[in-house]
Amino acid sequence: MTDLETSMATILTVFQKYSEREGDKHKLKKSELKDLLHDELPDLMAHVNDQAALDSLMDSLDTDGDAECNFQEFMTFISVVTVCCHEFFKDEHD
Amino acid sequence: MTDLETSMATILTVFQKYSEREGDKHKLKKSELKDLLHDELPDLMAHVNDQAALDSLMDSLDTDGDAECNFQEFMTFISVVTVCCHEFFKDEHD
Repeated sequence: MTDLETSMATILTVFQKYSEREGDKHKLKKSELKDLLHDELPDLMAHVNDQAALDSLMDSLDTDGDAECNFQEFMTFISVVTVCCHEFFKDEHD
Repeated sequence: MTDLETSMATILTVFQKYSEREGDKHKLKKSELKDLLHDELPDLMAHVNDQAALDSLMDSLDTDGDAECNFQEFMTFISVVTVCCHEFFKDEHD
């Protein structure tokens, strides 16, 4: 696989590792999302440091309102964070 | 870095590797997009095998209509492909 293909596969694998722990194995419940963010995005999680901030993040991700985060909602979140990183580094380099 | 952070960084790096070749270094022109797809997503590219299909893909990615693909548009494309992969493997496992 190319590096890009491996990256896409890794995002799928990381989601699944947490989503299949409890309940619906294709969705992240709030505790699974919290564990994923803590373990896999620790630098970002430093800015989501209280329960209210996590609740707010979960609400913004949960576009279909079922109180869980499906893969499409998770992928949208990863995209937004990656685009923000791009904007940051783009401005750094210009 | 965690595997997820490395994956997000890789997507940024792959985009930049092609976008900075010619013209606006923060956007993919059609020839750069074509090279990226051929080299980095060869399995997918097997389904985009003529100029008309590439033109159609570029048009669908280019949501701001400037005939180039910026990082946000590229990230949306990567998201859609990854979500499609997830749906495919999800159905395989169920």
